[in-house]
Order: sequence, then structure tokens, then C-alpha cells
Amino acid sequence: MATIPSQQILDSLNWRYATKVFDPEKKITDEDWSALEESLVLTPSSFGLQPWEFIIVENPEIREQLVEFSWNQRQVADASHLLIIAIRTDIDESWVDQFVGRIEEIRGDQGSFTGYRDMMAGFITNLDEEGRKQWAKQQTYIALGQFMTCAALMEIDACPMEGFVPAKYDEILGLTERNLTASVLCPAGYRADEDKYAQLPKVRFSKDQMISRI
Amino acid sequence: MATIPSQQILDSLNWRYATKVFDPEKKITDEDWSALEESLVLTPSSFGLQPWEFIIVENPEIREQLVEFSWNQRQVADASHLLIIAIRTDIDESWVDQFVGRIEEIRGDQGSFTGYRDMMAGFITNLDEEGRKQWAKQQTYIALGQFMTCAALMEIDACPMEGFVPAKYDEILGLTERNLTASVLCPAGYRADEDKYAQLPKVRFSKDQMISRI
Repeated sequence: MATIPSQQILDSLNWRYATKVFDPEKKITDEDWSALEESLVLTPSSFGLQPWEFIIVENPEIREQLVEFSWNQRQVADASHLLIIAIRTDIDESWVDQFVGRIEEIRGDQGSFTGYRDMMAGFITNLDEEGRKQWAKQQTYIALGQFMTCAALMEIDACPMEGFVPAKYDEILGLTERNLTASVLCPAGYRADEDKYAQLPKVRFSKDQMISRI
Repeated sequence: MATIPSQQILDSLNWRYATKVFDPEKKITDEDWSALEESLVLTPSSFGLQPWEFIIVENPEIREQLVEFSWNQRQVADASHLLIIAIRTDIDESWVDQFVGRIEEIRGDQGSFTGYRDMMAGFITNLDEEGRKQWAKQQTYIALGQFMTCAALMEIDACPMEGFVPAKYDEILGLTERNLTASVLCPAGYRADEDKYAQLPKVRFSKDQMISRI
């Protein structure tokens, strides 16, 4: 495998920003988008349980409808692609069993997974409903982080968004009846020339303040 | 900026795995580690508020001491570097003001940031203590996701870990009195030859199951 020079990675991370205005005419190619979907599927998660679903909203009318419930931020309608990262609200022992079934399917017979299965089931059943939701929601932010990083490396713009009304998203997208709820959004595409935020220097606290050594 | 081919990114994501056994003799170079620290500092966060601190535990005795409070997982002692991502427990209006001060410092005088400041302060003060903690914790998982992705691209192994006792970590590392609490860990370094998990095929649900279109 070819290692990517660290400076190239840092250049990408410095290049990216939360895109405020997308060019509605510029579309991500099918090949690039397919790779980004693959990167989402490859996201690591707690125990590997993947308590999520990635929803791509392609319907332009529905995307327009969502603007109102996104603090009127037009990115959800204008970006090339709209990704909704949703959490599953039905994670329980049967989901653990589905996952164990998938391990067996991919890795074949390597003896029993009973111990691993019981550890995961114990972890899940020890959490109350709110605890499971928080745990799952945290995992979706790993997916968000990985997605934004991969997009930046491919020189694709993205805008992470927490500012939306989950209940309206769930209703409009029919998520509730599928035991899903919207966790976080990430429109992706290409910045418009008029987005003045693209030119502003990135603001981060200093490395000295953010990193400590013990 | 050079775009990185998507296949190279996917190769890295397929190469990575949650490393169970690190080779204690193999160290990440100072140059590579410095780049990874820089990638942490560059992590995007809600409003850009960076409600975190990244702690690198270098002291080998302390790292040994932490093993017991990490479900006896030796990665925290054996990996080249041990990263603790902590959340700040004192995020309030004064942190918002610090951030606004930092914006002014970096971007210079561009008129008033009062509206943006008040929006952020309103967001924070509307959350109760537990709500702020959850919000901050979610942000740390973006950092975790970005860190793991960057490490993989540099062919550096990592192991995300939620299985530890935060109260003991906070006590041993003196985090509580600094208004910090450990959120998630990520030892990083190089896999040992004997780590049998390195050879196993990655288990993910299928793209068809994980991704839906509306």
C-alpha cells in the first residue's frame, strides 16, 4: 500500500472548510461518490456494530422541503449530494445477532463467537434507551469525521450540520417507521465562487493550548 | 493542492483495523507524530468551538498504571503513542468569548462578531450540564474519526477504545482539577506480527443494507 505524505494530508485538512454556499451546477462524479459511500461503509464503530444507516436524499423537491427545517441553510438543497447519517433506534440483542451472523458469513467457521456475542449483548442491554441513543449518536460522528476527511482528500467540499430539526427530518424522510432518526447531516459538492468563507483563514486554538503531555 | 486518488484512500481504510497487539519496539517518528497532532488540531467541530483537549501520555509508568483501568488491554501501554481525547467540562460563555477572541486574532478586524458570539452563547447556555457534556463528547468522535483516517493514510496503526474507566483516568492523569474528563482513547503505533486480527477480513454490513436513497 502506498503511504500518503503527511504534508499532503495536512494540505487537504487546511483546504477544507464548512462550505456555506455550494455551486448547484457542479456535481460529484458517480465514481467519486461511490468511493465516498464505500468510505462510509468502512467507518469503524464500537464493537463494529455499525448502529447507523446512511441516507442519500436525491429527490430535489424533498431537498427543497428540508431547507426550512435546517435553519434555512440552502446547502441541503444546493450541494451536489445530501448525506443524512441516521442512528438506528432498535439496536438490541437481535441486531447483535445479525452482526455475529455477518462475522460468520465473512470470516467463516472459526469456532464459536458466543463469548463475543454475549459481551456485546451485555453492553447493549445494560444501556437504557437514552444511553443506547447517545452511544449510537457518538458513533455517527466517527462516520462524519471520516467522511469529511475523505472528501477533503478528494478535493470535494462538505458542510457538517447539526442545525436542523430531527423530528421534521424523520417525518419528511419516513425515518421513524423504519426505526431510524437523523443524527447529523453532511451536504457535499463544490464551493461556489461567491462563498466568502472559503477565503478566510482557518481558526483553531493553538497546538500549545490544545495538546498537553503527561 | 494534489487530489488523492479515491482508490488509495479506500485501500488505506481497508488496511486499517482496531489493532489488538502493538509492537512496543516500533515507534512513530517525531515528524509523523507531529503531523498527526496537527491533524487533531485541525478537526472540525460544532461552531468551531473545539470543546476538547488532546492529551499524549508519554510517561511509561503512568501508561502501565492505566492498563488495569482499560479492561487490561495492553495497547495503552504498548503502542508507540497513547492519545486521550478529553472534553472540557467548563464550556460556557467565557469559552465562547475566548473563541471569538481567537477569531479576531486570526482574521483581524472584520466588523463585529457580536451576532455570532450571541448565537453560540445562546446555544451553550440553553444546554444543561449533561447536554453540554453529550454535545462535547460527540465532537470528540469527529476528532477520533479524522485521527484514525489520517493515521491509516500514513500507514500507522491505531485502536479506538471506549473500554476504560473514565473516573480512574481522570484521577490518574489529574484531569478533573483541570476541568477535563477523558472521552475516548486511541493508542497508535505499529501492529505486532503476532496480532492475528490483522489478517482477518474486515466485517461490515453490505453497502446495500447500510445505504439507502430517497
